[in-house]
Amino acid sequence: MSVQNEMHIFSSASEMRNWSRQQKQKGKRIALVPTMGYLHEGHLSLVEAAKELADIVVSSIYVNPTQFAAHEDFGQYPRQPEVDRAKLKAMGCSAVFEPTSLYVKVQGAESEDVNVVGKESMHPESHETFVQVERLQKPLCGGSRPHFFRGVATVVTKLFHIVEPDVAVFGRKDYQQWRIIERMVRDLDFGVEVVGMPICREQDGLAMSSRNARLTAEARQHAPAIYKALRWAMQAVESGAEKNPGTIQDQVRGMIEQAGGKMDYAELVDAKSLQPILDASLQTTLLAVAALFPSKDSQGTVRLIDNIVINEEILL
Amino acid sequence: MSVQNEMHIFSSASEMRNWSRQQKQKGKRIALVPTMGYLHEGHLSLVEAAKELADIVVSSIYVNPTQFAAHEDFGQYPRQPEVDRAKLKAMGCSAVFEPTSLYVKVQGAESEDVNVVGKESMHPESHETFVQVERLQKPLCGGSRPHFFRGVATVVTKLFHIVEPDVAVFGRKDYQQWRIIERMVRDLDFGVEVVGMPICREQDGLAMSSRNARLTAEARQHAPAIYKALRWAMQAVESGAEKNPGTIQDQVRGMIEQAGGKMDYAELVDAKSLQPILDASLQTTLLAVAALFPSKDSQGTVRLIDNIVINEEILL
Repeated sequence: MSVQNEMHIFSSASEMRNWSRQQKQKGKRIALVPTMGYLHEGHLSLVEAAKELADIVVSSIYVNPTQFAAHEDFGQYPRQPEVDRAKLKAMGCSAVFEPTSLYVKVQGAESEDVNVVGKESMHPESHETFVQVERLQKPLCGGSRPHFFRGVATVVTKLFHIVEPDVAVFGRKDYQQWRIIERMVRDLDFGVEVVGMPICREQDGLAMSSRNARLTAEARQHAPAIYKALRWAMQAVESGAEKNPGTIQDQVRGMIEQAGGKMDYAELVDAKSLQPILDASLQTTLLAVAALFPSKDSQGTVRLIDNIVINEEILL
Repeated sequence: MSVQNEMHIFSSASEMRNWSRQQKQKGKRIALVPTMGYLHEGHLSLVEAAKELADIVVSSIYVNPTQFAAHEDFGQYPRQPEVDRAKLKAMGCSAVFEPTSLYVKVQGAESEDVNVVGKESMHPESHETFVQVERLQKPLCGGSRPHFFRGVATVVTKLFHIVEPDVAVFGRKDYQQWRIIERMVRDLDFGVEVVGMPICREQDGLAMSSRNARLTAEARQHAPAIYKALRWAMQAVESGAEKNPGTIQDQVRGMIEQAGGKMDYAELVDAKSLQPILDASLQTTLLAVAALFPSKDSQGTVRLIDNIVINEEILL
């Protein structure tokens, strides 16, 4: 453990937990903001929200290998731990949990890569326990990333067990992730409250994401078309002009493809169950999209996700 | 909540957790003994062990539907809550957690049966989160009960989250279960210590089990053949007379079948990984068996399990 002017930095799970327990013994309420680092304004807004919800904010920085597949960008995921620490300290975080690995060390393995899906070690002592939210993990991002939410639910479980927070704050850009964590907490009786915060956007509407840094200059210029398409769809449904999911999805795809995006999906689903809908005017509807844009690094593409909730008042 | 002369009885998860947290605020160390009730000397020995490990013992009584399949004995599993409570009180338990259901209520469902595997509700709001220990759940009992350990790992996770114990005590009659919980705790970073206690046996060697009460008088008389077969195998290996797993398994099966048991499995496996072995003399070996004996109730059979660890000192 090291301390940077009152902000504790833990790399050991047991030291992190001990510190958390000491704070709780003192009656402090703890909020956790889990991140994969490379922090932007969106993350910092989560820390800001967390400060309102608890006495102490702990943020974690960890790029979790089990939510990446072998062909995905685990190795390319941007990292800047020192800049991140400075930002968290400036925001008033009390502690940062920054483990080297959250998975059991596998004999002979040099890197965390061994925990990436498809590269897992088959050593009988390696990590083998996973949490799955069986229905909610299937649609949307679950289609093209079939092991993604298994990895997310598992690592969030681990972080909850290590930090033992009273409340945890997630961003709704990862809308499906937020719903999955919410359901997991309900189903497994975690003593943790889950809060989902609104998406933060750049001035031109692009949802903030650590991955934006990997876009080519041209792609960065065109990517705000995603949000324009989402806004168009929301207005089309809420004004009563359109309610057919198929028609809306086709329009949204067209708008994003015209901006140079290669579509993974654009789907209108029930905002709670994430199941397909027949008529976008009848319930609170989530329009979620994922699209690939050109990347400036050798990996070729950057996968961006975004979403908008339509007819929000019906659910409430 | 009700209190029976100083033993608290909780049916609500939030009241259970609040009480546990109060005890911890007072600096008390809590041990959990999870059970499915119909308590026998084996369970009580776990409570006895738990008292040595902590300041306060909490026992849970809950027949968990998600670890039963539709054709199994969820409905027939013996229940005697009042006798159990009296036993736990006499043993010095401080609290009993006795929930009606640990799963989300499904609209229109009358009973817990709706959470038995194969009878699950497909309601979009029903329980859907499961913990799986992917390698260790497959062999032995995982063969004939493919969803069993998923249900066990899930309900133990829930109990850990509700009671928040410092230590939890399990019996090694359920050897595979103990290994699975131990691995789950390691992999998911639970702040809980897991302790496995030796099997308790009747005078004639039959492993104590709530299910023994369901045997016919004749089956009860013959069932100790299981332990005789296990002892024979241990002596055969440890004396150097036999080391071939196939030969030993055949002998053990024969002995149990001669006593009227119908074999599910008899297997020699590595005592840690539960993987098949080639030579029983080379590592600490688990001989685990499951066999069906005649039942006095209409269900027809009672499934008994038992095990013995051979060459225990090699592992140590």
